[in-house]
Amino acid sequence: MITLTRPIKFQDIDAANIVFFGKFLEFAHEAMEHFFASLEGGYPHLIVGRRVGLPAVDVRMQFHAPVKYGDVLRIETTTARLGNRSATLRYRMIRERDGVLSAEVEQTIVTTNLETLASCAMPDDVRAIFSTHLLVNAPSE
Amino acid sequence: MITLTRPIKFQDIDAANIVFFGKFLEFAHEAMEHFFASLEGGYPHLIVGRRVGLPAVDVRMQFHAPVKYGDVLRIETTTARLGNRSATLRYRMIRERDGVLSAEVEQTIVTTNLETLASCAMPDDVRAIFSTHLLVNAPSE
Amino acid sequence: MITLTRPIKFQDIDAANIVFFGKFLEFAHEAMEHFFASLEGGYPHLIVGRRVGLPAVDVRMQFHAPVKYGDVLRIETTTARLGNRSATLRYRMIRERDGVLSAEVEQTIVTTNLETLASCAMPDDVRAIFSTHLLVNAPSE
Amino acid sequence: MITLTRPIKFQDIDAANIVFFGKFLEFAHEAMEHFFASLEGGYPHLIVGRRVGLPAVDVRMQFHAPVKYGDVLRIETTTARLGNRSATLRYRMIRERDGVLSAEVEQTIVTTNLETLASCAMPDDVRAIFSTHLLVNAPSE
Repeated sequence: MITLTRPIKFQDIDAANIVFFGKFLEFAHEAMEHFFASLEGGYPHLIVGRRVGLPAVDVRMQFHAPVKYGDVLRIETTTARLGNRSATLRYRMIRERDGVLSAEVEQTIVTTNLETLASCAMPDDVRAIFSTHLLVNAPSE
Repeated sequence: MITLTRPIKFQDIDAANIVFFGKFLEFAHEAMEHFFASLEGGYPHLIVGRRVGLPAVDVRMQFHAPVKYGDVLRIETTTARLGNRSATLRYRMIRERDGVLSAEVEQTIVTTNLETLASCAMPDDVRAIFSTHLLVNAPSE
Repeated sequence: MITLTRPIKFQDIDAANIVFFGKFLEFAHEAMEHFFASLEGGYPHLIVGRRVGLPAVDVRMQFHAPVKYGDVLRIETTTARLGNRSATLRYRMIRERDGVLSAEVEQTIVTTNLETLASCAMPDDVRAIFSTHLLVNAPSE
Repeated sequence: MITLTRPIKFQDIDAANIVFFGKFLEFAHEAMEHFFASLEGGYPHLIVGRRVGLPAVDVRMQFHAPVKYGDVLRIETTTARLGNRSATLRYRMIRERDGVLSAEVEQTIVTTNLETLASCAMPDDVRAIFSTHLLVNAPSE
């Protein structure tokens, strides 16, 4: 599990005065960049230098409790499933002030050649990070 | 079915040079505002004047084909399920240049009092719009 | 003058319950894309196909009146200055409900080769649009 | 001077493959929240608890060098001017990899009662922070 602490920002709030639901995918992506920070050059080098990306093909989100300005989220990222060219990341987003689980996101990605936008083999260093944080009892193909 | 035509904007693109996956929830919300445009005062009056909101409790997204700058999405919005205080909106997002279904989003909302953030009865005019666009064979409780 | 009508969106609002000040640059860019809509293939083809961009080098903004959810902005775009490789766009953003000028933005751009990120000659069709909407008495070099 | 280190995020990039110019106002606001972090309850409590905000009335931006995915900005925030109810913040945004000044932003704010959206007296603790970081030779009224 890799953990990211993420204060809510002024502009994350919407006209209902809570965090806009689309922002949780920005938080998920920030947590994913953090998850892969140990890659050489980090996630940016994977994208810009190696031209390999991990675009989402499937996303599931559950919202349990609203998040407001002043809140801080603790985002716990694990690998829920590890396949050949695909994997599923699980993000648990917890409100720091009371420990309430506010949102859960599962994001299935496919390793993709960014020049052709076709799927490609998963690089070994990417697989190693997914594997290290694979949930016990999670399916690994 | 209510349809919204939505050109991709310059800032919708991410570092992989395709539309950022979180943007599809912004598109979904724009389509929802459009879906409820026939309410008196539109969706904004529901939020600001009547203090009733429709926050998401569950979201499912499938991504089938990437969307790029210059593309235009046609977003078809229907009601996939209509409950007592909740409902599920379905958005089919189609790339205009070739008619390819690029993304599907299902968003379950709960009618919510924005003062208390507790669920509340669904107003009749809101229910009427959901009902008009309910898919044939969709579950209605 | 080219005019764009732009309803405020749910997610344009910030924790102070008014439109976030950074959003006005998104509105300005949307108005710029609309300003150049008559180019062959529109602004997207200029960027993606011809690899010429108009990045900002200088921006000035004045905010006169707050904008809220439910408001609609009328954005009037003109050319305030037309140079050799650079130009200044002026956006007047007017609240439709009461005609109040809410924000003014001036954005100076430089014609740029997007492969090298160096300035380049301004294409004739781009210059023609700037020129058509040049304010009377504006400096043209 | 208060300094914030801010890695560029995946979704900060636009269709020209550089950071979208509107994002620099998000960076400025993040730096402002950080600038006021020593307030009791931080900037969020000022907004949500005390209902005092600092909306912008004037913004000036100069862009000197493009910023890309993988870059990290060092944002140096100072007070360029301190008035009675208003103040001007200056942000210098420096690309960490080469020390190049990429963007400068000056943002003039007015202390505002968020219930009425009218200007109000500047709270002493807010003034103290502005004052501590006032540039030598800056005008103080």
